[in-house]
Order: sequence, then C-alpha cells, then structure tokens
Amino acid sequence: MTDLIVVSNRGPVSYAREGGARVERRGGGGLVTALRGLLSRHRVTWIASALGEEDRAVAEENGGEAFDDVSRDGAPYRLRLVAHDPAAFELFYHVVANPLLWFIHHYLWDLGSQPDVDVRAWHEGYERVNRGFADAVLAELERSPGAGVFFHDYHLYLAPAFVRAERAQVPLAHFVHVPWPQSDYWRVLPDPLRRAVHGGLLANDVVGFHTERWAGNFARSCADLVDARRDGDTLHHGGRSTLVAHHPISIDPSEFDELAQGADVAAAAGRLFEKRPEQVVLRVDRTDPSKNVVRGFRAFGELLARYPEHRGRVRMLALLDPSREAIPQYVEYRAAIEREAAAVNERFADGDWSPVDLRIRDDFPQTLAAYRDYDVLFVNPVSDGLNLVSKEAPLVNERSGVVVLSENAGSHEELGDWVVSVSPFDVVGQADALHAALTMDPGERGRRAAAIAAHVRAHDVSAWLEAQLRDLSRVTLRQ
Amino acid sequence: MTDLIVVSNRGPVSYAREGGARVERRGGGGLVTALRGLLSRHRVTWIASALGEEDRAVAEENGGEAFDDVSRDGAPYRLRLVAHDPAAFELFYHVVANPLLWFIHHYLWDLGSQPDVDVRAWHEGYERVNRGFADAVLAELERSPGAGVFFHDYHLYLAPAFVRAERAQVPLAHFVHVPWPQSDYWRVLPDPLRRAVHGGLLANDVVGFHTERWAGNFARSCADLVDARRDGDTLHHGGRSTLVAHHPISIDPSEFDELAQGADVAAAAGRLFEKRPEQVVLRVDRTDPSKNVVRGFRAFGELLARYPEHRGRVRMLALLDPSREAIPQYVEYRAAIEREAAAVNERFADGDWSPVDLRIRDDFPQTLAAYRDYDVLFVNPVSDGLNLVSKEAPLVNERSGVVVLSENAGSHEELGDWVVSVSPFDVVGQADALHAALTMDPGERGRRAAAIAAHVRAHDVSAWLEAQLRDLSRVTLRQ
Repeated sequence: MTDLIVVSNRGPVSYAREGGARVERRGGGGLVTALRGLLSRHRVTWIASALGEEDRAVAEENGGEAFDDVSRDGAPYRLRLVAHDPAAFELFYHVVANPLLWFIHHYLWDLGSQPDVDVRAWHEGYERVNRGFADAVLAELERSPGAGVFFHDYHLYLAPAFVRAERAQVPLAHFVHVPWPQSDYWRVLPDPLRRAVHGGLLANDVVGFHTERWAGNFARSCADLVDARRDGDTLHHGGRSTLVAHHPISIDPSEFDELAQGADVAAAAGRLFEKRPEQVVLRVDRTDPSKNVVRGFRAFGELLARYPEHRGRVRMLALLDPSREAIPQYVEYRAAIEREAAAVNERFADGDWSPVDLRIRDDFPQTLAAYRDYDVLFVNPVSDGLNLVSKEAPLVNERSGVVVLSENAGSHEELGDWVVSVSPFDVVGQADALHAALTMDPGERGRRAAAIAAHVRAHDVSAWLEAQLRDLSRVTLRQ
Repeated sequence: MTDLIVVSNRGPVSYAREGGARVERRGGGGLVTALRGLLSRHRVTWIASALGEEDRAVAEENGGEAFDDVSRDGAPYRLRLVAHDPAAFELFYHVVANPLLWFIHHYLWDLGSQPDVDVRAWHEGYERVNRGFADAVLAELERSPGAGVFFHDYHLYLAPAFVRAERAQVPLAHFVHVPWPQSDYWRVLPDPLRRAVHGGLLANDVVGFHTERWAGNFARSCADLVDARRDGDTLHHGGRSTLVAHHPISIDPSEFDELAQGADVAAAAGRLFEKRPEQVVLRVDRTDPSKNVVRGFRAFGELLARYPEHRGRVRMLALLDPSREAIPQYVEYRAAIEREAAAVNERFADGDWSPVDLRIRDDFPQTLAAYRDYDVLFVNPVSDGLNLVSKEAPLVNERSGVVVLSENAGSHEELGDWVVSVSPFDVVGQADALHAALTMDPGERGRRAAAIAAHVRAHDVSAWLEAQLRDLSRVTLRQ
C-alpha cells in the first residue's frame, strides 16, 4: 500500500445543509466511481475544490487541512477541500474551463465569431485556482514525501508544473478525460496560454487518455507547439520525459448489475411508458452541444421521412441531464434541443403517437430502466472523450439492443466492430443507420449485443485503474 | 516550350453582353495574375467553368471545344469553357465548394449545429462537375498527349483521380490555395467523402501549398485518413508517389508599381478622405468570416477604450469586397460586420470624428490609393491560405506603415520577423498590437517596412511559377 494524492476539481463528496443538519452527498459521476477502487488499496488523500457554501464551511472548520472520511464502500481516506477565492473560481470554472477549454477540446467554437479569448480570466482565474491546487498538493507532500500525485482532467493543466517547480522527483500523473484536439485548434489560445497547457502537462511523468487517437493528437501537438521530441510512447521536453499512455475508462459491471435490479429501477420501469411503442430508440446525455442532440432529432425526423414504415411504431426517448446552465451557450443549446424535438413532433405526430419523448431531468433510476428496455441506443456525439453510456447501457440491456455510435466517440475505438457507425455531421447517414439498426435481424443483434457486453465485462474499471498504477510505478522505478 | 493544361473553376476571362455586343472581361484575381506568366512561356490550354450566360453561349458556339484567345499581355493561349449542368453546378459551387469545403479549410463550422453534410450534393454536384472537368482534360490530352496538367484549388479535388484512371503516365500537379486543416477537421466529411478528397489529390504527381504548415498538415492527414506512407517530402499511396511541395504565391512587383502610379489611383487618393485623420489603420478584405472583420472592429474599439489618446486622431478604414452573397452564412456575416462597425462608431464617435470608416464595394483604385497611405495595415484572419494583401500593400505603401498580421495567415511564415503578430482570437491582444504599431518609433517602422518590401521584390510571382514548373519537371523526369 502506497501513498497517493488524487487531485480533481470535483471531489468524491459534497456537503449541504438539510433541515439545519449537515449532510454528505456522495458523487455518482464516472470519475468518482472509477477512482473509488483506489481507496481500498492505497492511502489516498483526495484534493478537490470546495464547491458550495457548506463545502467551504467544512474546509474552514478544518483550517484548510485534510480530514478523515470514508467512501461509499467504507474505505477510509483523507479529503482536503480547497476554498478558492470565489471571483477567481468563477473565472476558472465558468469562463476558462467551460466554455473556453471544453469547446476547444470538442471543436465546438464558431471561430468566425467566437471566442474572444479572455486572457485576464486565464491569469486571474485559471492560473490562480491551479496555483491553489498546487499549494495544497505541496502541503500534502510535506506530510507524505513518498506519495505519487494523480491529477484529473482539463481543470488542472497548470498545477503539475507549479508542483514540479518545487519538487523535481515526485511522481506526477495526469489523466485527461476529454478528446485531445489537434494543434491547429489549440491555436485558438494565444501562444503563451497554449504553451502553458502543454508545458503544464509535460511536467507530469505520465499523461493518460482514453484512446490511442487522443494520445496521438497530444504527442503531435506537444511536438508542434512546444517542440517536444517524440520517442515511441515517450515525449522529451525541457530536460524531462513524459510517458503518453492510453487506457479507456470503464465501469464496474457488478455494481451496474446490482443497480439495474434495484427496486427504484423496477418502479421507474413501470412508469417509463404509458404504452410502450413497438420499438424504442434511446439516447442518454447531458444537454451539451458536444452531445449532438439537435442533429439526433433531425436524424430521427429524416428516418420517419425516408422510411415511413416506422411512423406510429418507433419512438425516440431522450433522457437528458440539464448541464452547465450558468453558461449562455448551454442555455441556448437546451432551447435548440427543445425547439427541434417540438418541430419533429409537430411534423410527424399522429393520433396518440408522437415520435420524440424528451425528458430533461436528472433521474438515474429512470435511466437504468431505459437502459434495460431499448431496441436501439443512439450515441452520436460531435466528439467525446470516451462516452460511458455506450458501455453502461449494453451491459444491462435485455432486448439485444443495437448501438448506433459516432465515429468520434472515444469508445468507438473499442466497440467499432459491433456497432452501427455514424458520422455525427451526416444527418441522412444517421437516419439510414437508425433504420439499419431497427431492422437488423435478431441473430445479428444478439451476436453484437453479447460481444459488447462481454468486452465491457472483460475490460472493467479495475483494469483501467491497474493500468494507471502500472504506468505510475513504471516511471517511478525509472527514476 | 511545352504543352500545359491549366484547370481552374474560374478562368482568366469571362464574357458578357454590353449594349448588345459581346465583351471580354479579364479577371484580376491573384491566381489569374499569377498564372499569366505561364502563357508567354508555354503552349497553354486553360480549362475553366462557363460561369455566366454569355460564357455558356461562347462555349456552345465552340461546340464545347477550346478556342484561341490572347492574354492581357498579348500572349496567345487556348481557352476551353466547360458548360456544366446548371443544377449540378449550383450544388457544386454553392453547397459543396462554398460553404462546405471552404468552411472546413478555414475551421469555420459551428460544429455543435452545422453543417448537415449534404452527401447527395456531393455526388450530384461536386462529383459531376469534377467529372466534367476530367472529361475536358482527357479530351485535351488526346490532342496534346505530352502535356502536363496543372489543377487549382479546392473546387477540383476529384478530377485528378478521374484523369489518372484513364492516363497512368500523364504528369498531374495540383496547387491548393487554402489552408489545409488537420485530419480531425476532415472528419466533418463522412469517410467516403474525405477519402475521395485525399485519394483525388494523391492521384497527382505534385501537390503544392503556400506554406510548410499546410503542406505538413496535408501529409499527416493523408497518413491519418488514407494510410499514405510518408518519406521525406513524398507520400506513397495506392502504388503511386506524390511530391508534397510548399511555395508561397506572390505578386508581380513591377505591375503593382505601375498600377499604384495610375491616374485612377491618384484620383482615388484625392477622394480617399474628406480630412485625413492623423493616423490610418487600414484593412482590405472580402466580407468572408475567415477574414475576422468583426473581431477586428471589436479590437479597434478595445484600442480606443484602453488607449484613449488615440480617440479623435486614428481612424480605421475598412475596404471590403462583397463576397458570395448567395450563401446565407455570408449574408449573415456582412450584417454582423455592419452591426459591429456601427456599434464602435456609436460608442466612440465625437464631433466630426468617428472611428470606423466601413466601405463595402469593389473599387481597386481606391484600394491602391489606401495601400499607399496607411500607417498601420491590419490583417487578422482566423485562417488564410496566404493573404496577398499583406504582400501587395507594403510594396506600394509610402508611410513606412506597420503590418499587424495574424499568426494564422500563410504569409506569416515569410513575414513574421517584420510584423506585429497577433492571435486572431485575442481581441485585447489585437488592441495592444494596434497600439504598439501606432506608436512604434520611426526608425523601427522604416526598417520593418523596407524588409517586407525587399522580401516581396526578391520573392515575386515568377519565382513561385518557376518553382511549380521545377516540381513538375522533377516528377516528369522521375518517370
């Protein structure tokens, strides 16, 4: 058992007050679930932002220091909540991380008019918050000098270099959960900013991605933008070496099996449809422009226009989590989603059948019930680091449902042989793919569904976690 | 002297009727000017689209065959106008070439919502028109079996493969005048379409670009998307080899010197300002979203906000050619340009001074007069294959004007040492750059202006043309 410092903007737990009492809310996000397995095997200190008011109160009560907590599984770990300056955090989170970096990672900027890069927000927000994280890491390293540090995602690109400047030898690893765009698109950031991103990541000993494609893009953009030299899976830069790895994240199959059999899911299944249509096309996403929900509805409309035999018989069920509603682009995108769903319904609704059933709310039991019950799962992102839905849903689906998957979803690298592939920008092609999926013969459906489920069981989240630790010990040994 | 077949969508001449009589209009575009030098040294047949009604009449009178013409310089050449099916040409030009391909080349799509790739327009428009060009080339090759073929630009990506299928040995060269985007952005096109683009270009013996950056992007996207193998400056694919070259296009300095001294320019100079402001910031562009005009006005507003000493003394003169006004995105962009100019004027106008002088019309003498008279030339494109304005204007400028140049303009590769570089997405940075340019000391201004003019004189369009011919004879000899 070794000491590990995990750093992510969002921590495994958040605090709130209910009826005057403090309550702990355990996060269910993919990253937190994935990392939970670490806690039973290592002495983990988790550093995260104090996000809400009660988080800040907890941080203050502990004098900004780490305190003891236990995970959902009962494993002990230490948690250190960093209470950033609120104005800096606002710039960090709602200007730089989202939308600026998120939109760069997913090729979402309408570059003819947006963005106007806010360099002040970079320095006064993103840089300051990263400095705050780095200071917390350095304080924990005083306590555990032998620890390795494991940074997560696009919120923390600068922190590794701040830590490295003080600690030449500490093992640093970073996992990037979003797609890595190619170097031209990084040029949306002025030169000093894009250098800081790449230089920050190259202060790590390991940088990991979900796919070979994103890892390859990273290696090239380091060569293009900061003159890193590539040697196999290693980048050399500034007198240091960084291993570039790719390990697709996954899920905990036994946990999903159990969740899907829960009483709340059975209840949700009973409420899922008033009258089930003959076939169900399901999508499950956040209301994020990277998820391509609007084109998805257009594609469903095209399906009904081109193949009228599906009218009255197939319904698209869209279960969407509201996302980042403080950001104007997300508010606009949600409105566009609602308009397009209404347009398709207006065009094709007939009697008591309407084609699109759009539900925008966070309701995980309902999602699990729908996972079990779809005929076609539709996952058409513009770009996606991995896309866990495409792994979760086939695992618990009970109808040998067919997966229609964007070639730009990270999971396509693993699942491509068993899905119906689509280009996210070809709406007519998506309509044809939905038709192919809806009319696929049962033997073929069964063969493909079984292959996906078997793949996910064989490549679960513990395999992902072990790969990270292997990489980290590999570079630690090298030192 | 050898036989050369030049192929471009727009030819060196177009026909119209004036008062019942046919008139020939000689194009003044950069490409036509650049290629004119070929006509005196080679037996050239130029194949182009019959664009207007009178072009189609000329094509019909010649039975679709080539006919004799003479260039502006009096050099004889043959012209073959291809009268495409009008519906196919409409899809080719106004759906696929613009905006689909143009927006891909310049990273301009707002990918969260646009485009819906129109695969039917690709096949029934772009492919058919390219087939028409290839048929014309093959007919001319019957007549001149030893000729080389020189294709131009993004309208003609498929024609080389159609020619190659019939003629394994004919030397084919292609010059791409737009930026080459990286492979992820080509994925906006579904797989068969992006393969056709890359496979079509790789049917050539030479593919040329303006910059090393675009040539490098092309080599990589061929490796990523069609598994081409790279060996130095040569790509191997499908049993063939293609030389990837980069030669920045340029201008004819003596022609420009002469033009700038014309009586029409002197007259335009007299009319240029009612009262000349102390300093003039000039921009000359088409109304194209790639040109970044809107952010340019915002940057000028930022300049006046951050450095109030320029108020009442500096004016931005924006001379814009109306462009592609049949395409909705261009109509919207022109409206955005007009709105932003009005907003800056409303915010800062004072007495008889207003900051932005926006003139949207095609008036070349006025442009030349303004070239001679600016203090700062502002060229901030989102992305630009080369940008001839940044070469033309400094050549004839008489005030040691400073060039503020986007790092994403192709000409930045040549002129970077002598300009004030800007990121096109950093509006505040552009304001600071304009301030630096406006306040640069005279010695430094003079040194930089002289260096740019000397570079353009030493690297003129004839050098560009000779480089093309050298590449073509190099691969011809290799065969």
